[in-house]
Amino acid sequence: MRTVYVNGEFVPEDEAKVSIFDRGFLFADGVYEVTTVLDRKLVDFFGHRARLRRSLGELNIVLDLTDEQLLDIHRQLIAANDLDEGIIYLQVTRGAADRDFVFPPEDTPVTTVLFTQAYSVIDNPLAQRGAKVVSVDDKRWSRCDIKTVQLLYPSLAKMEARSKGADDAWLVRDGLVTEGSSNNAYIVTRDGTIVTRDLSNLILHGITRRAVLECARNLQMKVEERPFTIEEAQGAREAFSTSASGFVSPVVQIDGKPIGDGSVGSVARQLREVYIAEMRKSAI
Amino acid sequence: MRTVYVNGEFVPEDEAKVSIFDRGFLFADGVYEVTTVLDRKLVDFFGHRARLRRSLGELNIVLDLTDEQLLDIHRQLIAANDLDEGIIYLQVTRGAADRDFVFPPEDTPVTTVLFTQAYSVIDNPLAQRGAKVVSVDDKRWSRCDIKTVQLLYPSLAKMEARSKGADDAWLVRDGLVTEGSSNNAYIVTRDGTIVTRDLSNLILHGITRRAVLECARNLQMKVEERPFTIEEAQGAREAFSTSASGFVSPVVQIDGKPIGDGSVGSVARQLREVYIAEMRKSAI
Repeated sequence: MRTVYVNGEFVPEDEAKVSIFDRGFLFADGVYEVTTVLDRKLVDFFGHRARLRRSLGELNIVLDLTDEQLLDIHRQLIAANDLDEGIIYLQVTRGAADRDFVFPPEDTPVTTVLFTQAYSVIDNPLAQRGAKVVSVDDKRWSRCDIKTVQLLYPSLAKMEARSKGADDAWLVRDGLVTEGSSNNAYIVTRDGTIVTRDLSNLILHGITRRAVLECARNLQMKVEERPFTIEEAQGAREAFSTSASGFVSPVVQIDGKPIGDGSVGSVARQLREVYIAEMRKSAI
Repeated sequence: MRTVYVNGEFVPEDEAKVSIFDRGFLFADGVYEVTTVLDRKLVDFFGHRARLRRSLGELNIVLDLTDEQLLDIHRQLIAANDLDEGIIYLQVTRGAADRDFVFPPEDTPVTTVLFTQAYSVIDNPLAQRGAKVVSVDDKRWSRCDIKTVQLLYPSLAKMEARSKGADDAWLVRDGLVTEGSSNNAYIVTRDGTIVTRDLSNLILHGITRRAVLECARNLQMKVEERPFTIEEAQGAREAFSTSASGFVSPVVQIDGKPIGDGSVGSVARQLREVYIAEMRKSAI
């Protein structure tokens, strides 16, 4: 039985509830973050906390917790759940109020929920064999830069991928790949350049994306932030994705076509190793 | 204190809770309906129930309630809350499961929630004075035909309207009006034709829209279902919106420009009266 955090209290998971009037439940009016835990420490916590503050600001949700309190809650959850490796999920919503498209009064208490998930983030089978992905139309809203809980479409895309025997979906808007269903998407061109979609309102500004691109540049790899098509990806030397819980995850097949020789590429493998080593050093 | 329905039980509203692991809360993985109550009876209940079944089907959510049970719960809520006039809100989600973009096992119990809101749906000040609306970019996802709880953007649009001194927002995609923030949008051209966006994945298939268009045709009014621009709307003789709780609601100003002579139009007024009379007769 996990111990989770709900609005100031640490409670058993089966007692962790929110009102049916919570705007997270009725309007998807909330934001979230997922922070990875390695060796009982938080990976890139400051990056996630800063993005949380930005998402909240974009939606005018005022969180009643200080930076220090946020860190403290994360650490208390690690201790309470004896969490060595896994993730901590955090969600903040505009709180509970009678249903109205108009926001409730500004003094309405926000809802803050955190819980842990324990699993092996390092020993991930997908990192060994590489993922098969399929392309799916990107039908999401146009503010994917805000990390909201409007996740129905990514969930549907993931299910469509599974129904086609693949592991994940890459989303395509106007003929160009935006990102994966819950990760950023990359290719490595024949000349060794790492290409990933440039930042805009159409993709999530990945915390892991930023750290991995920094690793790549430190390794003197060439990086281009620009759109690419599924066809360019299918002709690439390698492909991979990044996310907080997946780190760097190789992609070996797109819409049934093998990428490169169909096995995990050397750039993805090296970046995964270097990123994990960096994060082990800097985790807090 | 309202009595509300949560997963088979009628409970006081302050005890009405769902798990923080509910997919409605974490993924906006749920659908809803709003049915109006007039004279303690349900307006167009069969239409709402049929659309609910369609929305659930599109998302592969299997509701464990029969048609008769759904009707019975609505009626019990009217009785328990002594509800003469207002609405009944219903939401069904894919249920609670540990967080994963992949759907939980199919035997996971869905979450079903219903609650009432009492207010005067007939004596609505906006029906007297007409609404001011502003145009807002339609940044929603591309499956607006499914009535999901991904309502953050409509809520933001409504707030943008309020910040500009208006009552509501009309959403514009690729230069063409799709619908209002929580209603379908109409104009009446100079020659008396009622124009509203044709049905597609880009708009909600309004139950009230269908009934009002039937009223219009019975009154020998000409109806065209096609896209229109904000400019055409500003030059129209009248404008109005329809929704379950708003019935037919006149619109008298769009982006600061008065529509017609800036007062409530005769077509909107007549349609409102005829629709309400029809619904009083057919409510169950």
